[in-house]
Amino acid sequence: MSATPKLTVTTGPLPASEKVFKAGVIHPHIRVPMREISVHPTANEPPVTVYDASGPYSDPSVDISIERGLPRLREGWVEARGDTELYKGREVQPADNGFVSPAKMTPEFPVKNTPRRAIGGKAVSQLAYARAGIITPEMEFVAIRENLGRQQAHEALVRDGESFGASVPDYVTPEFVRDEVARGRAIIPANINHPELEPMAIGRNFLVKINANIGNSAVTSTMAEEVEKLVWSTRWGADTVMDLSTGRNIHNIREWIIRNAAVPIGTVPLYQALEKVNGIAEDLTWEVFRDTLIEQAEQGVDYFTIHAGVRLKHIHLTANRVTGIVSRGGSIMAKWCLHHHRESFLYEHFEEICEIMRAYDVSFSLGDGLRPGSIADANDAAQFAELETLGELTQIAWKHDCQVMIEGPGHVPMHKIKENMDKQLEVCGEAPFYTLGPLTTDIAPGYDHITSGIGAAMIGWFGTAMLCYVTPKEHLGLPDRDDVKVGVITYKIAAHAADLAKGHPAAKVRDDALSRARFEFRWEDQFNLSLDPETARSYHDQTLPKEAHKVAHFCSMCGPKFCSMKISHDIRDAAKAKDGMAEMSAKYRDGGDLYVPVKAPAPTVG
Amino acid sequence: MSATPKLTVTTGPLPASEKVFKAGVIHPHIRVPMREISVHPTANEPPVTVYDASGPYSDPSVDISIERGLPRLREGWVEARGDTELYKGREVQPADNGFVSPAKMTPEFPVKNTPRRAIGGKAVSQLAYARAGIITPEMEFVAIRENLGRQQAHEALVRDGESFGASVPDYVTPEFVRDEVARGRAIIPANINHPELEPMAIGRNFLVKINANIGNSAVTSTMAEEVEKLVWSTRWGADTVMDLSTGRNIHNIREWIIRNAAVPIGTVPLYQALEKVNGIAEDLTWEVFRDTLIEQAEQGVDYFTIHAGVRLKHIHLTANRVTGIVSRGGSIMAKWCLHHHRESFLYEHFEEICEIMRAYDVSFSLGDGLRPGSIADANDAAQFAELETLGELTQIAWKHDCQVMIEGPGHVPMHKIKENMDKQLEVCGEAPFYTLGPLTTDIAPGYDHITSGIGAAMIGWFGTAMLCYVTPKEHLGLPDRDDVKVGVITYKIAAHAADLAKGHPAAKVRDDALSRARFEFRWEDQFNLSLDPETARSYHDQTLPKEAHKVAHFCSMCGPKFCSMKISHDIRDAAKAKDGMAEMSAKYRDGGDLYVPVKAPAPTVG
Repeated sequence: MSATPKLTVTTGPLPASEKVFKAGVIHPHIRVPMREISVHPTANEPPVTVYDASGPYSDPSVDISIERGLPRLREGWVEARGDTELYKGREVQPADNGFVSPAKMTPEFPVKNTPRRAIGGKAVSQLAYARAGIITPEMEFVAIRENLGRQQAHEALVRDGESFGASVPDYVTPEFVRDEVARGRAIIPANINHPELEPMAIGRNFLVKINANIGNSAVTSTMAEEVEKLVWSTRWGADTVMDLSTGRNIHNIREWIIRNAAVPIGTVPLYQALEKVNGIAEDLTWEVFRDTLIEQAEQGVDYFTIHAGVRLKHIHLTANRVTGIVSRGGSIMAKWCLHHHRESFLYEHFEEICEIMRAYDVSFSLGDGLRPGSIADANDAAQFAELETLGELTQIAWKHDCQVMIEGPGHVPMHKIKENMDKQLEVCGEAPFYTLGPLTTDIAPGYDHITSGIGAAMIGWFGTAMLCYVTPKEHLGLPDRDDVKVGVITYKIAAHAADLAKGHPAAKVRDDALSRARFEFRWEDQFNLSLDPETARSYHDQTLPKEAHKVAHFCSMCGPKFCSMKISHDIRDAAKAKDGMAEMSAKYRDGGDLYVPVKAPAPTVG
Repeated sequence: MSATPKLTVTTGPLPASEKVFKAGVIHPHIRVPMREISVHPTANEPPVTVYDASGPYSDPSVDISIERGLPRLREGWVEARGDTELYKGREVQPADNGFVSPAKMTPEFPVKNTPRRAIGGKAVSQLAYARAGIITPEMEFVAIRENLGRQQAHEALVRDGESFGASVPDYVTPEFVRDEVARGRAIIPANINHPELEPMAIGRNFLVKINANIGNSAVTSTMAEEVEKLVWSTRWGADTVMDLSTGRNIHNIREWIIRNAAVPIGTVPLYQALEKVNGIAEDLTWEVFRDTLIEQAEQGVDYFTIHAGVRLKHIHLTANRVTGIVSRGGSIMAKWCLHHHRESFLYEHFEEICEIMRAYDVSFSLGDGLRPGSIADANDAAQFAELETLGELTQIAWKHDCQVMIEGPGHVPMHKIKENMDKQLEVCGEAPFYTLGPLTTDIAPGYDHITSGIGAAMIGWFGTAMLCYVTPKEHLGLPDRDDVKVGVITYKIAAHAADLAKGHPAAKVRDDALSRARFEFRWEDQFNLSLDPETARSYHDQTLPKEAHKVAHFCSMCGPKFCSMKISHDIRDAAKAKDGMAEMSAKYRDGGDLYVPVKAPAPTVG
């Protein structure tokens, strides 16, 4: 086994930012993190509170050690519920790491934890508790987080948006969270074996969330790079992270990731199952898959993508598609079904999958194995046949008290996007929707974060609860750290644009604060309030680098004479010096004697 | 005067591309350029024809000399109409170049052309000809260009879109173009003094167009950089270019730009007028402005942004805005009006402006001086008061046979975008709409090409005819060459996504060709068909650089075992070897004897 590589991750706060904590009321021991961005004292404005998914890494008071993992803050909460037991757990097998040679094996995570599972067949999911009328610490944590620190009844909240029938409340109470979870309209992905998690909710009536994908492939990337991608992606705002590794060392890499993840971790267990049968899809079996579910549930994976909607009878609907089946999991299951002339083992054994997941509170992400991978294939029969099946499976999962979200497309031109949302709401009982984009055109590989950012903003507005990011490398290769950041920022834009359009009561606070900073030439404040302060500052400094420029009432776009904001200030100052702009202008509103009519045309030109 | 700097611009075709020309029928002498992208012979597919705004620079058979300028291809067309005369023209004044010292003056363009103007007060605009029932060479040029080489009745055109009441035809005829121009629903910006222009149309029923902004500021940039930005931006797809220079040498720089521009050039004459009065807005006069209009019309500017909608009585409506007036021209006019306690001289002298513009066929771009510069200010009273005025001015301009388009916002959250389109259609008689974005959130300086790309795609879908690009440098500084490219590509994405969603009959051809190339692992074809082949190729090569990789049936995202497209091919091959996928799958469609029902749950887990 090779030595543990030197692991460095990015730590420290973003500029002008402080991590603050709010305590619970029902559960006073909980400490809910959020980020306060301070502005210059001359602004005479309070800090702006924003949602913070970055975990302890951005807390300067925390000593980070990747080898130790994050604090196991939920351990006591789970134990206190008294419905789980520690048990021996499964032995790690060579197959779990893809039969990698010792020389190339990723070192094991140094701490071995004992896994928990439900006692006596109970469901230990947030859904089960919610249905029983219980407000868990996780639910209260979510409520406080979603409020971004605002106090009930101390603010005038302007509701200005179009939410297409959503029910975003003025103020999120723990009871509201419980109710949303109980009715399946929101999930709190929170495996009992992932106590390092800072709980969050995915649901139409909460802030729109985003997911970043990490994970190695057979061709490239190492554990150290993947852990840094986890930390890096959440630093910029990823709310959950999926480990989509398909190479070697899947088990060991995942342990390092989960032990260091403050956000929910999702996986596609089918990938590892395929590695266990040496990449031969036809050799997959229910037994290998089942074993993989348990292996991953014991590690603490918070949600599984399960492609149980790829049924044998659907596959022929893809025969004439331009891009066939573009989902890895979907193509693997289709290959298996056709080879064996059998119904999908995921579909057949679905209730057994539920029984496993309810014992650990792993949420379902019902996979869209037949999503369209090109504009030509959008909204076709294959895609919607699968969606119907996912609707059916949602009811079965709920019957077992399993939390469920539904995955969605893909490549969809703008005029076909709303139909996806409408159908999903109708067919899947309002379970949260979790889309990949969608990309609104195929013609721009290298820029698919943008082609998909357009579709993601729109489908988020229409009600999608979580948006899976797309990086500039989509269709071309595995993303690196820079691609991850660009993908995350793009999707934070899409999610926030959606929150604004839905009329989320707190969304506009940040836009307004930044625009005031911009108008008042508080350059540092403008940068610090933005999604990426470093980039904003460095772009500004490319043409105006001196510190004196940071109080300049212009930038290099227009220069000092032409800055419209500077001129706007001049106008307002002059107006104040006289009678006030309104009074000045009002005298002329009705065409008083100073109004000069338009002249007749002059006789010559030139 | 300093020596002419060494001028290099980017020339040569894009990969796998050939510039082809189609001849006119009504006007057989016209040669309309378009670009054919060839794919690998094994694909057995014809080249894909795409719109080409790049001009002679991408034609390897043309010898480019910036000092000579482009061929004056329209000169004969204008002369043949017999309704214009050559005349002495105006002398260039020191004020025209901002009183720059000889040491810092940009050299004059080496060739001095004699300007033309209408004879005897006639209107020589495309609108006047269209109304008279004349199909000009410009109109036929546009019709051929908009058809992208497709032949009438030889293709089955699928109309799949939602155009919100637009009238995009299956096939564009010269008569259709004439009719759209005659009713004011489209414009062909084509100053008689810009014979180098390859004519194009801006209108809701044509392909959505994009504009790139270039121009120096007092702080930075030179003529050589600006000419290269012109060539560079059109290479990547800019359909028009605005020269927004606000520094010195405005006149001389503009001459270099227009003489080398195959696309329409727009300006904001107010900027140069302000330079002529040493930057003191209050010192502006109608006479200085009028002189500037003539100066620029003689040079060949194709459209003028005129902020005649900023009326005195509107200005107080901006008093409580978060970001005041963000338009340079709008803020200058507001300052002038308030200082003088007078109605805008642009509004008062509007008919005289029309008389000048109709004599050269300069189109109006009625400026949105009161557009919202923040989410908070979107769709407010100031903005719509100005829009009402622009509607009134449109009718006046049309009365004078002047072509008109209407500028639009700005910063607008998604739920408020459609209202802008609906109001503009209603108030401005269906004159083409030309928006700046809009940006759908304020919180991402450094990424405003993306925040605005979202809004631009949507408003283009709703009917906006041209989208003014935004670069990553928006709000931060003057864009450089790289920023220009990113802005152009982003806006090509937005425009094309809009064409697709509107159901433009030819839009999907490129998406489908690229997706077929993707599915068949014709990597080079995928890159070559994309908006930015170099970037797509280089991103792919970051992890798989060898030539052998260009025929690999995978990339580094998933590797050889997990590539869903590879697996999709395997499935199809296997199905063909048996009875065909449809037959195989159909046997199981109705749950035949190979369907195994879902098992009862297993009694234990873990």
